[in-house]
Amino acid sequence: MKPAIKILIRKASKEDSKDILRLINELAEFEKLVPPDNAAKKRLIKDAFSEDPPFRILLSEINNEVVGYAFYLFTYSSFLAKKTLYLEDIFISDKYRNQGIGKLFFEKLTQMAKKIKCGRMEWVVLDWNVNAINFYDNLGAKELKEWKTYRLMI
Amino acid sequence: MKPAIKILIRKASKEDSKDILRLINELAEFEKLVPPDNAAKKRLIKDAFSEDPPFRILLSEINNEVVGYAFYLFTYSSFLAKKTLYLEDIFISDKYRNQGIGKLFFEKLTQMAKKIKCGRMEWVVLDWNVNAINFYDNLGAKELKEWKTYRLMI
Repeated sequence: MKPAIKILIRKASKEDSKDILRLINELAEFEKLVPPDNAAKKRLIKDAFSEDPPFRILLSEINNEVVGYAFYLFTYSSFLAKKTLYLEDIFISDKYRNQGIGKLFFEKLTQMAKKIKCGRMEWVVLDWNVNAINFYDNLGAKELKEWKTYRLMI
Repeated sequence: MKPAIKILIRKASKEDSKDILRLINELAEFEKLVPPDNAAKKRLIKDAFSEDPPFRILLSEINNEVVGYAFYLFTYSSFLAKKTLYLEDIFISDKYRNQGIGKLFFEKLTQMAKKIKCGRMEWVVLDWNVNAINFYDNLGAKELKEWKTYRLMI
């Protein structure tokens, strides 16, 4: 589906901080998670726009309004011996969904991944988020059912 | 359990390439996966010891013999606004298991993670690898049951 409106996908800069934090609050509400506190928000912006950022941000813009973001970084597959583009977060503000923005984000991300010879793109999704899961299935992505993810708090 | 033998955990250097590739073949056999081909092995070593390596390698050594490795890198949690130490691979050669080497790797890795203020450590495990799963459970790690992992080939 081609969106009828003009959507711009672009890199974020420090001037977008306020919009990014606004969308993070929206994402936390949507995912029923506690949003980052003020100290975490400060760190996030500092990290995102530092000299050697641990992750990168793409934004989607409609009529000069920032309506979504994708946070990504690069991991590595030892078996492929290639980088993996890891999508840490993708979020589109409620009223801008189903207009093709998610697809544009993925097009841009896979383009970048190809350019630097990544073997894969990976991300996680909450198991109740059926709309997202359907979207990922339609992209041709596969769930890694045989792998369990473990976490240790530091 | 304190190991009776002297185990050294140290950073890998290019001189360890042969040992690393030998252990990767052992891991592939153990995980019933196709091992990396020669081109991938070359890339892996080149990447590991490049100026800005996409992952890092710790080795375990007993009597000057390299018997295991841990490949790790750093991802990022947008909600914690902290880095995550991501363990891409951990492997200990068959006859050196159950001697405390895995625990030493995790001690070293959590130490490093603390030092650079990571919020978490994460990794994946194949669902049939019961020994590893028991080991991770005993470490106090938790499985992320509500998250599904998706992959898109590039």
